[in-house]
Amino acid sequence: MQTSQAFTPPNRLLLGPGPSDAAPSVLTALSKPLLGHLDPAFIGMMEEIKSMLRQIFQTENEMTFPVSGTGSAGMEFCFVNLIEPGDDVVVCINGVFGMRMADLAIRCGANVTKVEAPWGEIIRPEQVKEAVAGKSPKLIALVHAETSTGALTPAEEISKIAHDAGALMLLDTVTSLGGCEVDIDGWSIDAVYSGTQKCLSCPPGLAPVSLSPKALKIANNRKTQVQSWYLDVNLLSGYWGTERVYHHTAPISMNYALHESLRLVLEEGLQTRWARHKANHEKLAAGLKKLGLGIASQEGHQLWQLNAVTVPEETDEAQVRKRLLEEYQIEVGAGLGPMKGKIWRVGLMGESSTAENVDRYLDAMTQILAH
Amino acid sequence: MQTSQAFTPPNRLLLGPGPSDAAPSVLTALSKPLLGHLDPAFIGMMEEIKSMLRQIFQTENEMTFPVSGTGSAGMEFCFVNLIEPGDDVVVCINGVFGMRMADLAIRCGANVTKVEAPWGEIIRPEQVKEAVAGKSPKLIALVHAETSTGALTPAEEISKIAHDAGALMLLDTVTSLGGCEVDIDGWSIDAVYSGTQKCLSCPPGLAPVSLSPKALKIANNRKTQVQSWYLDVNLLSGYWGTERVYHHTAPISMNYALHESLRLVLEEGLQTRWARHKANHEKLAAGLKKLGLGIASQEGHQLWQLNAVTVPEETDEAQVRKRLLEEYQIEVGAGLGPMKGKIWRVGLMGESSTAENVDRYLDAMTQILAH
Repeated sequence: MQTSQAFTPPNRLLLGPGPSDAAPSVLTALSKPLLGHLDPAFIGMMEEIKSMLRQIFQTENEMTFPVSGTGSAGMEFCFVNLIEPGDDVVVCINGVFGMRMADLAIRCGANVTKVEAPWGEIIRPEQVKEAVAGKSPKLIALVHAETSTGALTPAEEISKIAHDAGALMLLDTVTSLGGCEVDIDGWSIDAVYSGTQKCLSCPPGLAPVSLSPKALKIANNRKTQVQSWYLDVNLLSGYWGTERVYHHTAPISMNYALHESLRLVLEEGLQTRWARHKANHEKLAAGLKKLGLGIASQEGHQLWQLNAVTVPEETDEAQVRKRLLEEYQIEVGAGLGPMKGKIWRVGLMGESSTAENVDRYLDAMTQILAH
Repeated sequence: MQTSQAFTPPNRLLLGPGPSDAAPSVLTALSKPLLGHLDPAFIGMMEEIKSMLRQIFQTENEMTFPVSGTGSAGMEFCFVNLIEPGDDVVVCINGVFGMRMADLAIRCGANVTKVEAPWGEIIRPEQVKEAVAGKSPKLIALVHAETSTGALTPAEEISKIAHDAGALMLLDTVTSLGGCEVDIDGWSIDAVYSGTQKCLSCPPGLAPVSLSPKALKIANNRKTQVQSWYLDVNLLSGYWGTERVYHHTAPISMNYALHESLRLVLEEGLQTRWARHKANHEKLAAGLKKLGLGIASQEGHQLWQLNAVTVPEETDEAQVRKRLLEEYQIEVGAGLGPMKGKIWRVGLMGESSTAENVDRYLDAMTQILAH
């Protein structure tokens, strides 16, 4: 038998596309003694999580809870429950996560119509209008904040187009929730998923989701069985609902952490939290300008929480990331797909979004780019 | 905004069907600062997890890693990757988890043949032999340790029958791994999944899995796409393999905890750990006998780690569980399905399997049954 040494992680500052740094009280919550997943004390805490998630999503949807997997499991939850083979689905694609949604819809047997915009740009409402003209798809799917490009596509108008066409509106809020406005009921979103490790600053491992009563009814009245057992809302609603029917064993410690991180979000207040993300993004943008660097994503639609920083010509982007990590203990992300080598992805999410962190990053970049 | 109070769990002794108590060092590992999931330090730790899992599964399978979901996600991982619509699958059913496997196989489009035994009894090799006579199913699925009934079905002979019939052998080791012998290569198992919250004594949230090269080849050469994106081994192998292609964001903290819990398993040694589970089961069985209580599952095949304690006639089983929890802070589980009201499920798993805990449970039961 070969036993490994106990693992001690190096002390990084997480300014990548997620995970962001967790608050000390969230890490402490993780280390609390375990409870059984049907313990009345745990069930009471689950109810508080659901209630806090509703406030943060700004929804009254009863079916609001954390799926026991990461953000991508939340995406899969929405598609497998709402889509049946042969359904027409419109997927908006302006980055990695739109592509992933299209892939998932196809795995559910959907006929997918793609509405595409160049990476870094937003999806324009007119594009969606055109795609649904004379058609009545079952669902339109949009990524609110594209983590791969740093662009924020406004969701409200596209949601209206969806409803006018008789379609459900599905929104990916993995990177937006907790960092900028997300108004599920105000925007009439029928299905939404998020992740814990971005602007909620909880470790990765859970995917908050919410379904409108209309979406839930569609999932309840399918012609075919949901292709996933693990993500079947018809089974999960018995577990997360009032009956408490055993389905799977909820990740106890991760739910402790989520409870604490949601508490911190609400204690700060949504408006205050969004304003903090905006202010630190603006501080970063101003500092980058002084360094001769820009933000690659579409002007006027740049995310506050995820900044697509342009790599100067003749700069070895991987080398800069490596030096940031090794010499300054700062993690930033690389570009993906067509943006590989062209941008660094600098996250200012949740706990990581502070003026001190912006300074620390800009100082490190100043020194690295000088030598 | 309504903010909840910070959550402090009551201090329970977990003697139910899982989660079991986690070791203090596992809880401490959970609270370590986060790393990015592509950080070289995290990737190094992932490699150690894979290596330790191989030792505990007793396999050399390259494709051995923790799925980012609970044990049931591990079950789904095996079925969605290996089964295609129209495949013939034999599922052995002697409890809840066999039923779940059949449900999952059907969701994958399989033609399912059920081999059933009464709950509490084992699946006999002759039954499987009979079911496959003259047939060549693609896969035979068996639950090693049925958590719902406390019975341990020997896997080796059934695995031989599977291979003689040209089938893959799939084994559920959610409750067996770390608590009694599991020998994946010795028994020629092609696909196996487990959970972290039973005899590994890590919080719930990850599902260790392993695929033999033969099983992996079948998953790599499917005619149809895997119906799950989240669990597609063809994508996951790029992430957990040497390429480190971004797929999803691994649950960082949960992997810290798994690393530490696997370390503790190997530090104790597999044989020593199994012997400890056996000894504490025997101590419990002897103590139960003195109380006039028995173990309901089949003689000679009773699990060490999960004991199906018979509820005496005219005893209100729910009331006893409630008193154990509220007055003695001890959690035990209820019976499921046909065993509801007839058994308590008393887990002595991983950290929870100690002589002191057996005494504490027996003392509490003595007092409760007397009044």
